Amino acid sequence: MNVPPTAIIVENVDYVLTTAGVQERCDLVLDQGRIAAIRSTGPIGSTGPIDTEMRRIDGRGKAALAGFKNAHTHAAMTLLRGYGDDMRLLPWLQERIWPAEAQLTGEDIYWGTRLAALEMISSGTTFANDMYFQAPRVRQAFRDAGMRAAVGYALFDFGDSARRAALQEEVMELLRQEHGAPSPIPDPVFPTIAPHSIYTCSGELLQWAAALAADQGLVFHIHMSETEQEVRDCLDARGLRPFQWLEQLGVLEAAGSRMIAAHAVWLDRIELDLVAKYGVTVAHNPASNMKLASGCFPWREYADRSVPVMLAPDGVASNNNLDMFDEMKLAALLQKHHYGDPTRLPAEEILAIATGARSTLFADSGVGGALTEGGPADVVLVDLDHPQMVPVHNLESNLAYAANGGVVDTVICAGQILMEGRTIPDSREVLQEARHRASALAARARP
Amino acid sequence: MNVPPTAIIVENVDYVLTTAGVQERCDLVLDQGRIAAIRSTGPIGSTGPIDTEMRRIDGRGKAALAGFKNAHTHAAMTLLRGYGDDMRLLPWLQERIWPAEAQLTGEDIYWGTRLAALEMISSGTTFANDMYFQAPRVRQAFRDAGMRAAVGYALFDFGDSARRAALQEEVMELLRQEHGAPSPIPDPVFPTIAPHSIYTCSGELLQWAAALAADQGLVFHIHMSETEQEVRDCLDARGLRPFQWLEQLGVLEAAGSRMIAAHAVWLDRIELDLVAKYGVTVAHNPASNMKLASGCFPWREYADRSVPVMLAPDGVASNNNLDMFDEMKLAALLQKHHYGDPTRLPAEEILAIATGARSTLFADSGVGGALTEGGPADVVLVDLDHPQMVPVHNLESNLAYAANGGVVDTVICAGQILMEGRTIPDSREVLQEARHRASALAARARP
Repeated sequence: MNVPPTAIIVENVDYVLTTAGVQERCDLVLDQGRIAAIRSTGPIGSTGPIDTEMRRIDGRGKAALAGFKNAHTHAAMTLLRGYGDDMRLLPWLQERIWPAEAQLTGEDIYWGTRLAALEMISSGTTFANDMYFQAPRVRQAFRDAGMRAAVGYALFDFGDSARRAALQEEVMELLRQEHGAPSPIPDPVFPTIAPHSIYTCSGELLQWAAALAADQGLVFHIHMSETEQEVRDCLDARGLRPFQWLEQLGVLEAAGSRMIAAHAVWLDRIELDLVAKYGVTVAHNPASNMKLASGCFPWREYADRSVPVMLAPDGVASNNNLDMFDEMKLAALLQKHHYGDPTRLPAEEILAIATGARSTLFADSGVGGALTEGGPADVVLVDLDHPQMVPVHNLESNLAYAANGGVVDTVICAGQILMEGRTIPDSREVLQEARHRASALAARARP
Repeated sequence: MNVPPTAIIVENVDYVLTTAGVQERCDLVLDQGRIAAIRSTGPIGSTGPIDTEMRRIDGRGKAALAGFKNAHTHAAMTLLRGYGDDMRLLPWLQERIWPAEAQLTGEDIYWGTRLAALEMISSGTTFANDMYFQAPRVRQAFRDAGMRAAVGYALFDFGDSARRAALQEEVMELLRQEHGAPSPIPDPVFPTIAPHSIYTCSGELLQWAAALAADQGLVFHIHMSETEQEVRDCLDARGLRPFQWLEQLGVLEAAGSRMIAAHAVWLDRIELDLVAKYGVTVAHNPASNMKLASGCFPWREYADRSVPVMLAPDGVASNNNLDMFDEMKLAALLQKHHYGDPTRLPAEEILAIATGARSTLFADSGVGGALTEGGPADVVLVDLDHPQMVPVHNLESNLAYAANGGVVDTVICAGQILMEGRTIPDSREVLQEARHRASALAARARP
């Protein structure tokens, strides 16, 4: 899909959410995968001649916003949706998730990722930061779906040096395969380095990953401080809290500004200051944290330190969907509830976070925040003729608190139309194949 | 709409959620507003002759469940969706909600309720327990929409005896208008008695309302113990907690088993035991409680005492939608988060609560719980061809955690088809009128 797309004009959009706030009655011109112009809709005929090659989309009764950026996910786990719920973490992993994951084939991972991409596109997400196994199958699935994606191969060595050496070799080979010819358009699907966590990776693996991230300009994607237990375990083993441990290893110095730390729930003040000092981006996963009873993300503490925050659904096995509208509402409501303060995390802020406007971590790869001229043509059109979108006293409030993924009408990613009028061309095939593979997987995983 | 509808057969439904659990591959026969049969789908031709007058619906690729029961709402407040957010309770009421409500006309309330009904039907809700002003307009709106509704005229006297006498007169007149000719089919729209709360109503008004509820067989609908402050105020004024005060007034004795207490967040053990003793139904409003930072509903304490629990979105001004799928996910996740236990409030239990299966409070008026032969024909068909519904390892989990209102395909209420293939006949007109009235209302309310 990495070819310059046809120019598109979205005409007469009711509301456009831009970096400068909500603008009413605009035309959006998309060209060469970028936003060429956001301009007020004039009287008919006043816009001058329109290139007849241009694809026209009617924006009346619609709002345009930037595509959502899913900052942390395990896309292929859609095949395990509802496979284990309402359980404590360890029995859930040991009795349900791990036995099933042990049975996953490369084809399963491809189709699970296609199902995830289908779900994300249909609910307005244009970019996902993924961490899973079989990176080439994940990469291919996102390419075939037309989404932007950062693909991280989940690394674990459990302190085993032979396993570490084999993993390092494998990662270097994957990176060699990834790097194609230089192109003026950033590749929409690109690799990250993704050591799973400090409790599954040795210090040596983390240091090697950080050096590689710095050397090759890769994002460093890791789970950090999701549960109180892992912080306690780190303190017991090393006398240091997790982010202090990363600092001592030199990982923050080498790759802090390239790091996205998923969950990041249990930080003390010293760690919050470290995260701010080294420019780490944190990915908040409200549904997953609530469903697994992991704890409450300290949004205010990050905001006070200007730490870049992104939003994520995690994998569907702990959510159980990939709808960023759900995550926005949960994130805002969780802050208000947990801290007893209804003014916390207001609608416009969670919308900025969800569209990636509070972090520039993926900007080098062409992933942008709110809509702006010159920015990437990753645009979502929301249909305002849904009952929950009526009336529009405050569009941002409607999006954050009232909407769900079903209000998304049209999705454009890197200038390509992925969904129009809620139709995604190959959705039937993806649903069928994923259904079939999920049943077969459950049958194989049965004890 | 109170006429016996045509018989309907929903054929070949993939899954039917009944009182006896999930049944696969069934036909549902609906006749005279009731479920005549739920039977296994046989080979073609085996079902015997089908009445040619019967309306046939294709259930393939669908799941059937009971319509959701919205246990507490202020439907007309849809006109104030997004009109005030992220504010503390008092400034929110004083600066935004009350000035706008002061400008509401009867027509506004009619069209706001129509918008609410449209939103509820499109997200699978077939019954609402409403509390608002201008009961005749609310009643008419629900009738015109075809939904079941319990309509309560919100009563406040603030201790003013002249106001109380006028209100009592008004309520008696409304009840006289309500009672039509006796009918073998319960009227889908019926009155309740709805004193707003103990902090807006005198003891005398509460006692009068309880006696009236007992005398006329009405449900007694009230806000109770939503915030910690109102409990403190009650203790300060009377030396009793709110439910103790109701007991002292004789209100629990007279009308406890007919009472639905909305919110019911801040109860101590003595009050929990009172609620159980008198058979009060409690209505949990998770989105509203979280958004206004009111506190956490003690679900486990109610469950331990077999207190009937229902679920509700409250008014959209504090939510901001009426989607019971949102409420199910929020309720379950809030329990897990707040009490640090992922096994709390599992999917099948919240689904039972949301469909009204845990309370028989409205049963005399024909409002049922899960699907069962002989029960009311209030049936929702969910389209399983949405990405978030694939795969089906566990249908109840998919409904509670993965779905949103957009998966609802068809809604049948009291045997009448209100939505089919997501189409509701007069939705355009309702959206237009509500939009227009909401703008005009905001213009009038501007200071």
